[in-house]
Amino acid sequence: MTESRDIRLELYKLLIRTFHIMRRVRQHELNKYGITTRSSAVIDTALRLGEEATLSKVGQQLVLEEHSVSEQLSRMEKTGLIRKVRDPQIKNQIRIEVTEKGRELYEKSQDRKTVVSVLTEEEQRNLWSTIAKIREQAVKALGKDNNNLYPPSDPSELPPD
Amino acid sequence: MTESRDIRLELYKLLIRTFHIMRRVRQHELNKYGITTRSSAVIDTALRLGEEATLSKVGQQLVLEEHSVSEQLSRMEKTGLIRKVRDPQIKNQIRIEVTEKGRELYEKSQDRKTVVSVLTEEEQRNLWSTIAKIREQAVKALGKDNNNLYPPSDPSELPPD
Repeated sequence: MTESRDIRLELYKLLIRTFHIMRRVRQHELNKYGITTRSSAVIDTALRLGEEATLSKVGQQLVLEEHSVSEQLSRMEKTGLIRKVRDPQIKNQIRIEVTEKGRELYEKSQDRKTVVSVLTEEEQRNLWSTIAKIREQAVKALGKDNNNLYPPSDPSELPPD
Repeated sequence: MTESRDIRLELYKLLIRTFHIMRRVRQHELNKYGITTRSSAVIDTALRLGEEATLSKVGQQLVLEEHSVSEQLSRMEKTGLIRKVRDPQIKNQIRIEVTEKGRELYEKSQDRKTVVSVLTEEEQRNLWSTIAKIREQAVKALGKDNNNLYPPSDPSELPPD
């Protein structure tokens, strides 16, 4: 085992463990609103996609299997965050509508400072491109499509507010 | 909402979602060995700590609550990956011993190339220090101790093989 191989494995651990801690921090914040990190991601995606927010598209964008999204949506429908709508325009597809309650909780939860704020703007830019590279590789390893992921690999392609 | 605030939130999403994808990739690899990403992290930590691998120390190092580690250890004991040992030398503490089976599966699972390999050495170094900064901030946000985390914030402090 060469030194650089070793460092790559340890860097990988640093990443995975840090992200675990970040998610715990976020879940603590979200507990106030009674939503999970995953429901927050689903609402975020559904609001962004608007009329195009189908079950399969949300699954693609969050790199989740359809059955996971489906279970997730059922839980979210029970707690009144979203509605599943059968849309005759889109064959065999369930469309996701965020309820007033879901939107309100989501919006409240967005008023926050993330741990990323500790970085300089240059570090933020470098981190973006480095993580985008890793994501591309990881999505490829899953045999999935790299298109249509959000956020985009290039931050200049972020949609306007 | 200023532009830079917005970019920080989106960078945060990129991180969290990439992490989710990385974990799925790793879980796919680990399925061959019948272990989860979390049991792999527990074995990794227990092997590194050796005689000092107590329940609470493993929990601290992985930033997991004691009850989560405890449930995790019970599952791992059932599948024969570890043994929980009551050590009279360490009061009120359970020590974790990795079994032969656990060590063997873990070692086999280490023979791999991670998604981090797609980065240049310079990108790897920069990523290390950037993520270490984020981790420090996140651990602080949880009100936890930044000492004793692994991997260390400075890669030159990695223990020798």
